[in-house]
Amino acid sequence: MSFITLLTDFGLKDGTVGVMKGVIWGICPQARIVDISHHIAPQDVFEGAFVLARAAFYFPRGTVHVAVVDPGVGTGRAAVAGQVGEHFFVAPDNGLLTRVLARAQAGGWSVRFVRLENARYWREEISRTFHGRDVFSPVGAHLACGTPLGAFGSPIQADALVRLPQSQPRRLENGWEAHIQYIDVFGNLFTDLPAAWLPEDRRGVRVSYKGMVIEGVLPSYGHAKAGDLVAVINSENWLELAVVNGNAAERLKARTGDALLVELT
Amino acid sequence: MSFITLLTDFGLKDGTVGVMKGVIWGICPQARIVDISHHIAPQDVFEGAFVLARAAFYFPRGTVHVAVVDPGVGTGRAAVAGQVGEHFFVAPDNGLLTRVLARAQAGGWSVRFVRLENARYWREEISRTFHGRDVFSPVGAHLACGTPLGAFGSPIQADALVRLPQSQPRRLENGWEAHIQYIDVFGNLFTDLPAAWLPEDRRGVRVSYKGMVIEGVLPSYGHAKAGDLVAVINSENWLELAVVNGNAAERLKARTGDALLVELT
Amino acid sequence: MSFITLLTDFGLKDGTVGVMKGVIWGICPQARIVDISHHIAPQDVFEGAFVLARAAFYFPRGTVHVAVVDPGVGTGRAAVAGQVGEHFFVAPDNGLLTRVLARAQAGGWSVRFVRLENARYWREEISRTFHGRDVFSPVGAHLACGTPLGAFGSPIQADALVRLPQSQPRRLENGWEAHIQYIDVFGNLFTDLPAAWLPEDRRGVRVSYKGMVIEGVLPSYGHAKAGDLVAVINSENWLELAVVNGNAAERLKARTGDALLVELT
Repeated sequence: MSFITLLTDFGLKDGTVGVMKGVIWGICPQARIVDISHHIAPQDVFEGAFVLARAAFYFPRGTVHVAVVDPGVGTGRAAVAGQVGEHFFVAPDNGLLTRVLARAQAGGWSVRFVRLENARYWREEISRTFHGRDVFSPVGAHLACGTPLGAFGSPIQADALVRLPQSQPRRLENGWEAHIQYIDVFGNLFTDLPAAWLPEDRRGVRVSYKGMVIEGVLPSYGHAKAGDLVAVINSENWLELAVVNGNAAERLKARTGDALLVELT
Repeated sequence: MSFITLLTDFGLKDGTVGVMKGVIWGICPQARIVDISHHIAPQDVFEGAFVLARAAFYFPRGTVHVAVVDPGVGTGRAAVAGQVGEHFFVAPDNGLLTRVLARAQAGGWSVRFVRLENARYWREEISRTFHGRDVFSPVGAHLACGTPLGAFGSPIQADALVRLPQSQPRRLENGWEAHIQYIDVFGNLFTDLPAAWLPEDRRGVRVSYKGMVIEGVLPSYGHAKAGDLVAVINSENWLELAVVNGNAAERLKARTGDALLVELT
Repeated sequence: MSFITLLTDFGLKDGTVGVMKGVIWGICPQARIVDISHHIAPQDVFEGAFVLARAAFYFPRGTVHVAVVDPGVGTGRAAVAGQVGEHFFVAPDNGLLTRVLARAQAGGWSVRFVRLENARYWREEISRTFHGRDVFSPVGAHLACGTPLGAFGSPIQADALVRLPQSQPRRLENGWEAHIQYIDVFGNLFTDLPAAWLPEDRRGVRVSYKGMVIEGVLPSYGHAKAGDLVAVINSENWLELAVVNGNAAERLKARTGDALLVELT
């Protein structure tokens, strides 16, 4: 089985993603292609890094993840492919792999990367603006169909890959200054505070944000009334703020990077 | 062949749907997965029920439909899997199957359901907020790969499944009070009046809604001028209001549940 | 391998596209289906023609492209299927194939079309409003599974197919009046001026549009500062206007069909 996932900021209107799939099937017809997301905010490498790391490792081992959020396309930025644990990644070297690499580090997984240098595995004519079609998709397709990583270029140390700063809670005397690190389609606010840092029984937790104070962490959305602002542990094991059957981001005019106070009382 | 469809209110940005596909392929790599919709309005079980029943039965027999619009996730609401005619469904027991069950009743199809109880077929760690990943996708994947329905839990009578009220036209002396039951992406207004209730020749039908009066039912949109408000029989055999090459919902500020008058003159 | 692509203006909310895939798999279970776009502006045959021709020929030979942007559904407009080079197309005969046919003409590819007349290859009951489900998908599925083109109906000359006017630059003394022919999801403005018409070194090119003057053509977006309005050669080898990491369409309130001046200085 040859599984390929795609993550881009290309949207679904222009046929751009279709072009990538056409190129992939032209090289590796048996590849089974699935979308992780094409609605990353334009050029938002940080958001792309978050969504990629969230979804990639749920796929079967051997899956090739092709990720293209690439404001530097056509400049000198490097392009890379590599193996992280039992998954493969193809992407520009611009920080898009930041969180994938952080997971590898946390999990102690092996990491092995090469620079994309061997034009034999690219499309014949390379545009300056659409490497998703001309470089990343062909390389992903060749990888999925069995070309070994070393064929694509020379090794690059994992330490040398571009990494973005990741938001981290700041320790305070009675808790943390945490941050909104992602806002999902429901308007739920993912903070950067891991559930594991909170007391096991979730008692005595107070969250303050934008003048609102939330006392306690609920097991799930359904344990409060529609419209209530609540704190829950989300499916990624982070502390999350949400409005039950509503949109917390809109209600609170929340933005990624906003700070909030989490106190143990 | 193992076909799986997905219907959720998760949207396509966050990678959530990708996660479900990754989980499915991890269990049943040969499954061929297709999306019915991920743009159901958040927590709108009624809308999900409509779209699911509209699309599901066009798929080949044996297809497994995994549907997750689940405001009660993490509470006591049951989760179920079942066979309806020759199709399989996996969903929370919150009314999302209302219209599928209504079709079964109308068609006299067999219906057989079980509660999802056997954690052996779930992911090892079950979150309180994302059963799409932890319960529904794994069960759908096991079903698609041949696990018999009885393995997932104990039988539940079809009569005991949660059903939402469905809008129904109200008989009047010269016609019906009908209702808008769905608004599609073009802004076309699906009423709840079946075409079969109208005269075969479609003559003498007058529709009144929001101060507009439409005389007659046209064979299709192309039989009037761009911008005209028309009544047609739509592809689901319901009476529909539409603006030719335009958006009736926007023009009329229509909302699901609105009443309209259909008279036979 | 049987590859089918879909392009429509149906959006992804209503389950309409899911219905088409269900119908296709009911006829040709081995078909591998991929979306080119379902976000063509409603009834915008011109936009559909652009996106279809842009993406179709990247797919492997033998791919069947089913395209449905069909304001005339249910009227007398013909429906057709045909072979263009090594690709197959199924569509209403309303101009949606304009640019595919133009590419065939430019490339000297063979073109062979038939009218869809043989109801044996359609769904049993044909609605007046959803031929995507009832005619185009079934015909596409039969084509993908090996039914020869001649089985679907009688030949129609390529010259007799409906074609839309295509925008063309107008030659001026020192350059051209060019036009915005497509606006992509980033707000980039595709003009109708082919890169091949510009000097090879791209020097001495001045673009004037909406009171803005751009001097020079850059190799790619990354060669200017964020927020700069630039001219580049895009991945389709057209002259394009873009705002680096921004949205040129919004900034300039650009619309398809707008004229701009391209001078060689």
